[in-house]
Amino acid sequence: MTIGFKMEPVTANPTSSTVNDREVRETICEICRNLYTLGWVSGTGGGVSIRRGETIFMAPSGVEKEKISPSDIFELDIKGNITRGPKNETLKLTECAPLFMSAYELRDAGAVIHSHSPNVVLATMYAKRIEPGLSVLEITELEMLKGLAGHGYHDVFELPVVDNTARERDLTDSLRRAIEKYPRTCAVAVRNHGIYVWGKNEVQAKTQAECVDFLCEILVKMRQNKVTKEMHPMGI
Amino acid sequence: MTIGFKMEPVTANPTSSTVNDREVRETICEICRNLYTLGWVSGTGGGVSIRRGETIFMAPSGVEKEKISPSDIFELDIKGNITRGPKNETLKLTECAPLFMSAYELRDAGAVIHSHSPNVVLATMYAKRIEPGLSVLEITELEMLKGLAGHGYHDVFELPVVDNTARERDLTDSLRRAIEKYPRTCAVAVRNHGIYVWGKNEVQAKTQAECVDFLCEILVKMRQNKVTKEMHPMGI
Amino acid sequence: MTIGFKMEPVTANPTSSTVNDREVRETICEICRNLYTLGWVSGTGGGVSIRRGETIFMAPSGVEKEKISPSDIFELDIKGNITRGPKNETLKLTECAPLFMSAYELRDAGAVIHSHSPNVVLATMYAKRIEPGLSVLEITELEMLKGLAGHGYHDVFELPVVDNTARERDLTDSLRRAIEKYPRTCAVAVRNHGIYVWGKNEVQAKTQAECVDFLCEILVKMRQNKVTKEMHPMGI
Amino acid sequence: MTIGFKMEPVTANPTSSTVNDREVRETICEICRNLYTLGWVSGTGGGVSIRRGETIFMAPSGVEKEKISPSDIFELDIKGNITRGPKNETLKLTECAPLFMSAYELRDAGAVIHSHSPNVVLATMYAKRIEPGLSVLEITELEMLKGLAGHGYHDVFELPVVDNTARERDLTDSLRRAIEKYPRTCAVAVRNHGIYVWGKNEVQAKTQAECVDFLCEILVKMRQNKVTKEMHPMGI
Repeated sequence: MTIGFKMEPVTANPTSSTVNDREVRETICEICRNLYTLGWVSGTGGGVSIRRGETIFMAPSGVEKEKISPSDIFELDIKGNITRGPKNETLKLTECAPLFMSAYELRDAGAVIHSHSPNVVLATMYAKRIEPGLSVLEITELEMLKGLAGHGYHDVFELPVVDNTARERDLTDSLRRAIEKYPRTCAVAVRNHGIYVWGKNEVQAKTQAECVDFLCEILVKMRQNKVTKEMHPMGI
Repeated sequence: MTIGFKMEPVTANPTSSTVNDREVRETICEICRNLYTLGWVSGTGGGVSIRRGETIFMAPSGVEKEKISPSDIFELDIKGNITRGPKNETLKLTECAPLFMSAYELRDAGAVIHSHSPNVVLATMYAKRIEPGLSVLEITELEMLKGLAGHGYHDVFELPVVDNTARERDLTDSLRRAIEKYPRTCAVAVRNHGIYVWGKNEVQAKTQAECVDFLCEILVKMRQNKVTKEMHPMGI
Repeated sequence: MTIGFKMEPVTANPTSSTVNDREVRETICEICRNLYTLGWVSGTGGGVSIRRGETIFMAPSGVEKEKISPSDIFELDIKGNITRGPKNETLKLTECAPLFMSAYELRDAGAVIHSHSPNVVLATMYAKRIEPGLSVLEITELEMLKGLAGHGYHDVFELPVVDNTARERDLTDSLRRAIEKYPRTCAVAVRNHGIYVWGKNEVQAKTQAECVDFLCEILVKMRQNKVTKEMHPMGI
Repeated sequence: MTIGFKMEPVTANPTSSTVNDREVRETICEICRNLYTLGWVSGTGGGVSIRRGETIFMAPSGVEKEKISPSDIFELDIKGNITRGPKNETLKLTECAPLFMSAYELRDAGAVIHSHSPNVVLATMYAKRIEPGLSVLEITELEMLKGLAGHGYHDVFELPVVDNTARERDLTDSLRRAIEKYPRTCAVAVRNHGIYVWGKNEVQAKTQAECVDFLCEILVKMRQNKVTKEMHPMGI
């Protein structure tokens, strides 16, 4: 349990000497177990990263996320170089690393969650093409929008959706462009793949990830149920 | 576990000297964890409040509901004034407070649950407009109706649905009008948002919330499956 | 954990002196918690009963099923008379009692589970009318049929569905007629309400309940997805 | 917890003297509990088998999979003969045994999972007939494909689907033919029944099973939602 921590969210940039490594590593494991229960990281998919000052912590790649332990976590510096690897030397850094780094660099994020939720994957299929490689989902008039920083009930949340690529690292450029083009978003989805959601700290990253997932679930079920414009502004 | 308590529901108004604060606070935390597992309070949404005599206990706002601890709970008097805040002074009272208070005042409730269940959010889209700002869902011939005080299988449960507002506290007037207009209801839903369900105590609030959620799930799936009038009186 | 017991299923009629009360009572509580997690007994709905020789154990009525304790269980004799009530005298015997007794009497059952599963409730809406008050669901060519005693993959499982009534006890006659009319069934569903599933012991009652629920889920989703006759013999 | 083991996957053929029986048996029980929570082995369905060198471990048949204990596991030699039975002599070897053996023999698998997931059962109904007794599902452009050995995002995963039979052992021939006809697959589905998924060890078997299940869930929901070819290459 990390209640004390959560209730007094860390400032984004404590000096690294105050960083409590163990707590951060355990928090990543706890979040991974929670995401597995939610069905967002099945089959080794997804990932979690947390920043403390100049140090970035990342879950390893290609392993069962619900079973990682604190000693399996990578540490990187703010440039994205590995400064400390896991005890188990067979573990590999995730290909998502440059994507996580983009949120840290461009948005001063404190944590990033990468989910493979079925709700999100299905929602991306409904995204409207804006330009080559980029689409958008527009979501409005749902209370859960209030859970996203800077958004109210009547606002339109524009969730950018970038096209997927054969290699995850090849998403970096389009994800960065989407982050820059949509300055109010806390998330970028990837078509037929999943989503990256960030926040000023791991609590906000997790709760915003839950809100975005809820919104995607409602969007998909509205389409499934053929909800009309009379029933909801997002109807057909 | 609070088995002993649950099996002998409190009378609505014990003198405040008999109130066991700790037990009430732990019960709120337990219910919040249960609601999180059910998917009703994701993304910091939703809330729980319990009354003991003249003292009202409320979960804090804007935090992960599955992780609150007994010392995070607010205490209010029957007028809605905070009489004791949480240890962690950064916590804020929920904007739902006046809505919870309405159920205590107008219905002599012993507990109120506020859920953001996807079943309820989708169901509200099917509600029939009655007057500006107010709609209604009519639910009948489902066994789970018997779980709602004063309702039988053949009765029509009228669930009022009020329009959502930009600020949660601005719902107060329409929620109070709905409570007064529908004297038999134990719940008021909010369009595209969620629901408030109350009961004479926390056990009844929780079990009625489960019944209403079940009814909303069935209603939505009946629409999704295009269930006809020959198959069920609520069919299309 | 009751592993030892499950692996060596009790004979249906041990002399009552060999009955281990405590174990039976704990098994009922364990099954109730499991059913709550499955979403089959929300809102105080549903119930569980186990027979040991001439003694019948039943969960109480109108309480949160996931929280009952061993001392909350009723004991009845084979005629259905209460021989031992729960410690907590405010608890009431379930209105399902005569329905549970029918399975004991007419089928020599060792245990009965009453579920309010949404899958079953929706499936009952698709049942074909046979005569006033009685309908039937025909399910075939699904592997899970093998989990029902006396059924193979190519068999047609005929699940009788009786009309619901205002009072649960008023279901007794139609349920008994359905049991007699469908001698191969291990379950009778109740329209818009739920299902009664029995077995020679509690393990078979639970596993058959899971199989029937799975079959109902598939049936409903096949309708929802408009599965055709070319895709499956149960298609439309 | 078997973290240490998972992070250093066993080579496929250790000499049998290095086999730690207890750990393998506990891993099978742990996987079974996990599969029950996922809804893949309800009603005694499904199964799990792990190989260590020349020794093959299998969960017993016809029992609640979530409750088996290490002493309930069968041991077989590489020819499929039982070399050590469970303590409880009433337990029976699963009829799936020859199917599990086929994956060991033809693919040098280290573990096999048999699931009765509703997602898979529904997906098999959409499989395209190739020849008598054999169909195929083609799945492409979904990130979760990367979780299957030898598959990338743009590849087409061909999942063979064999017709179901009255007796499980009668599936052996068609399953072997499917394995040989589709050399790149890590799974064979059985129409209206479920799926067999294998991997070089139990971690890969489980994670590939999760990926295949996810892909089947998306396929079914795409059909349900009438996703078009403009929205996704697998659309209609």
